[in-house]
Amino acid sequence: MTRQVDFFFDFSSAFSYVAQGKLDSFEKNHGLRFRWRPFSLGAVFKETGGAPPTPDTLKGRYIYHDVERSAREIGLPYVWPKPFPFNSILAARAFYVIAESDPRAAVAFARAVFHASYGQGKDCGDPMVFLGLAVELGIDRAALTAALGGDEARARLKAATDEALARGIFGAPMFVVGDELFWGADRLDQLARWVERGGW
Amino acid sequence: MTRQVDFFFDFSSAFSYVAQGKLDSFEKNHGLRFRWRPFSLGAVFKETGGAPPTPDTLKGRYIYHDVERSAREIGLPYVWPKPFPFNSILAARAFYVIAESDPRAAVAFARAVFHASYGQGKDCGDPMVFLGLAVELGIDRAALTAALGGDEARARLKAATDEALARGIFGAPMFVVGDELFWGADRLDQLARWVERGGW
Repeated sequence: MTRQVDFFFDFSSAFSYVAQGKLDSFEKNHGLRFRWRPFSLGAVFKETGGAPPTPDTLKGRYIYHDVERSAREIGLPYVWPKPFPFNSILAARAFYVIAESDPRAAVAFARAVFHASYGQGKDCGDPMVFLGLAVELGIDRAALTAALGGDEARARLKAATDEALARGIFGAPMFVVGDELFWGADRLDQLARWVERGGW
Repeated sequence: MTRQVDFFFDFSSAFSYVAQGKLDSFEKNHGLRFRWRPFSLGAVFKETGGAPPTPDTLKGRYIYHDVERSAREIGLPYVWPKPFPFNSILAARAFYVIAESDPRAAVAFARAVFHASYGQGKDCGDPMVFLGLAVELGIDRAALTAALGGDEARARLKAATDEALARGIFGAPMFVVGDELFWGADRLDQLARWVERGGW
């Protein structure tokens, strides 16, 4: 029996990159199926007063180190995108545009954006960069570019972000199964136990 | 081969309570030995600009729920001490006073403080409460009370807190092996893998 888990993420969240590198093994070994849901972490931070970590504090320094260490543990290449954080809004809208006609292609696109950003350090805040990735996946560049400027693309990302807030999401990555939230790439083990035991 | 891990904690940190409930199994199954090191998280927050979570934000609400869920997962009783957070300074000084003559008794005292606070909801900010726990462990109440007021007890807690800051500690619980920090009750698994693999 497969259990669906919502994977709320932002392309500009380094731990979301680490998390997506673990999903295949959790799908294979724990009967989970992840539904990819990019949202705007910046918009959520505006509502909740949150902020991304910066490397100029003890906590920020730890978190920067921890991202690199956590990626290395699972053999995931890691470089800091430049700039970081980058503007992830347009790439997230592109995800939803692609998903409307082809959900699998949208996930492939999301993986490509993560890899280009954190595996190669590219700036996926630049539409030229992520449009190039879409083209490599066989997605029509002109159609995607046109849709990106439209109200619908904007509305879809806003709806996902509003839903995230309504479900209590304040950070990324966040995994949601039923009403239960699990925050962080390091909580997939606990989530899998939760599903296996039917909660506790 | 046993590997020593420093366990930096504050009695007033709910996740430190969850963490101490896991230590026995990690000592038994992963060849770790924990050195208990209470420090003043309040003093560290003053230096680093940190703050304890409060349940009136989305993030705080999640954290409060997560503490309870994480305790429940390992069968640890959980109630919120009243008040919370409580003033943990004197109990931490008592730990170091006891440790000077009997390190094992100090750990037994720390476990008793955690259990009274989060298993029974008692206020271990009140010296009457934690002195009673010490007496039950056969510790001389008059001698402990006298030492608590002295400069040496104060200096020992301050030294541990200064050391925590010098080693980059900004929160609790924090596990330290070599120069490597692992923050959170949920990182013991990763720490055990780190030790087993000799880092990565």
